[in-house]
Amino acid sequence: MRAIVLKGPGDAGTMRVAEVPRPTPRSGEVLIKVTAAGVNRADIVQRKGHYPPPAGITDILGMEVSGYVAATGTNVARWKAGDAVCALLAGGGYAEYCVAPQGQVLPVPDGVSLEHAASLPEAAFTVWANLFFDTQPLRTRESLLIQGGSSGIGSFAIQAARSIGARVVATAGSQEKCAYCRDLGAEAAWNYKEENWVAAGWAWSEGKGIQVILDMIGGDYFGKHIELLAQRGRLIHIATTKGAEVKLDLREVMRKRLIVTGSTLRARRPEEKSLLREGVEAKLWPAIANGAIRPTVHARFPLAEAGDAHQLMESSAHLGKIVLTL
Amino acid sequence: MRAIVLKGPGDAGTMRVAEVPRPTPRSGEVLIKVTAAGVNRADIVQRKGHYPPPAGITDILGMEVSGYVAATGTNVARWKAGDAVCALLAGGGYAEYCVAPQGQVLPVPDGVSLEHAASLPEAAFTVWANLFFDTQPLRTRESLLIQGGSSGIGSFAIQAARSIGARVVATAGSQEKCAYCRDLGAEAAWNYKEENWVAAGWAWSEGKGIQVILDMIGGDYFGKHIELLAQRGRLIHIATTKGAEVKLDLREVMRKRLIVTGSTLRARRPEEKSLLREGVEAKLWPAIANGAIRPTVHARFPLAEAGDAHQLMESSAHLGKIVLTL
Repeated sequence: MRAIVLKGPGDAGTMRVAEVPRPTPRSGEVLIKVTAAGVNRADIVQRKGHYPPPAGITDILGMEVSGYVAATGTNVARWKAGDAVCALLAGGGYAEYCVAPQGQVLPVPDGVSLEHAASLPEAAFTVWANLFFDTQPLRTRESLLIQGGSSGIGSFAIQAARSIGARVVATAGSQEKCAYCRDLGAEAAWNYKEENWVAAGWAWSEGKGIQVILDMIGGDYFGKHIELLAQRGRLIHIATTKGAEVKLDLREVMRKRLIVTGSTLRARRPEEKSLLREGVEAKLWPAIANGAIRPTVHARFPLAEAGDAHQLMESSAHLGKIVLTL
Repeated sequence: MRAIVLKGPGDAGTMRVAEVPRPTPRSGEVLIKVTAAGVNRADIVQRKGHYPPPAGITDILGMEVSGYVAATGTNVARWKAGDAVCALLAGGGYAEYCVAPQGQVLPVPDGVSLEHAASLPEAAFTVWANLFFDTQPLRTRESLLIQGGSSGIGSFAIQAARSIGARVVATAGSQEKCAYCRDLGAEAAWNYKEENWVAAGWAWSEGKGIQVILDMIGGDYFGKHIELLAQRGRLIHIATTKGAEVKLDLREVMRKRLIVTGSTLRARRPEEKSLLREGVEAKLWPAIANGAIRPTVHARFPLAEAGDAHQLMESSAHLGKIVLTL
């Protein structure tokens, strides 16, 4: 089969299409003929050699796909050849075929094209895990600040939080991106290159502070988040693009009874991903089917142009998700 | 009435008995004729001028008492003159009489003397809030490390955690204190002056790490706690005697999906304390009545010798609680 392989760690030009053996589904696994593969920032980190796949996982990039079930391993009851599905992967999505544990496979939501479905699993699992599963679930009318609201995860998170009636604000890096966040349901969006979003957050929250912050930035944002959080606020990290080593004043944690937490998705055990899948399918898939959450595919590239897709993501010029098509 | 007053912020010698006006219970408050008052480390911090009482609260020290209801304000249904009670206070316990909001008053647990009852509220509310109420409750068979296991809070926490079937380990500052922790139910106790408790914690947990850490130390313990926590571990701060400003690597938080949190008790609103009281009475009081949690009064001092009581606490030579008697 055709797949993207790396000549070695490096820039986007290191990716090439090559012929590699088609994987074989083992017990509990599904073989998917890929229609489209989502591109994620973690793919870029992996391409650069800084995010190796977990033990036993292919080193082909790609953490989410859509397509048709081509074959199933033993002990797979729900899926059969020909089913239209999308799936969360620990790797292997940039290819004509990939295997996925059955607990990470989902039907394509009603009314969503296969191409768009490829953009959903990583964002849906991440948002479900971090806002609704790991700690106390986000509640109706709670305030939520999403850093990087126009990213793939951010654009999904804005809509998912709005769909349960939370009050959402976001930051983004341009006026166009801020407008995009508001279009997705954010009550306010602040251009972090031009505005003091801490002061804006205080004003917007009428001096109460923000109850939940979903962050993929870290670095000097961390102290600002501790400052901006409301009493009993939760700070949830899913990435640290500006740096992971931060200073914390425990008196602020105690005084406001804060929760500082975070998670990664890929490192979770398959049983945990299967548990997350249940919530995603039960709670988020209906919100997608009824239009409360729209897939946000900004650009499509043929598999062979994966390098261009990475360059677009690295430029941060995109709004929402980028997919590769086969 | 007689009460301890401060000549000014300073050492234990600054405390004197003086005549002051007896307080009057307002609506929803109970006037208590004090039999005994618990001594807490926060009293010492307040005495030194570093922990001022919340707005509207007397500057007389003392955050817990036992005694008899002497009078009630309006809108108090449960309590009547003569009831034997103990209570959590925001201040005012080092005195012949004090007032307490009715939601912070508890009956004396069955089988417990009034003198011992004075040692319970601060520890019981703190342990309930931090281990069972604020975040996900401590569960049966979960592992819990208590830093400072022989302190008043620590000795209560060991027993409360054991009473629900958690597996408890502790640190303390001498072999005698470690033996005391084991006597209270800790499976292991490590002398932090002599032993590497991080290595001991790894060995005891068979390489899994510790699931919950209750800490009143902070400082250089913080990084060791992040290291020692198990996957999905929770680090709960209730004080920071070695320092509050710490460094945190968010990658570790994300990789292990940790929760870093903490709280103070006194700053909580009366409605929150009333909610905590419900849990304390429903869950911890029966464990005290049936002997699973024993009050741990180490020493008693007459009110006029409050300075000696503080000096004992500052020497850290005590095991469990210290009370003042009237």
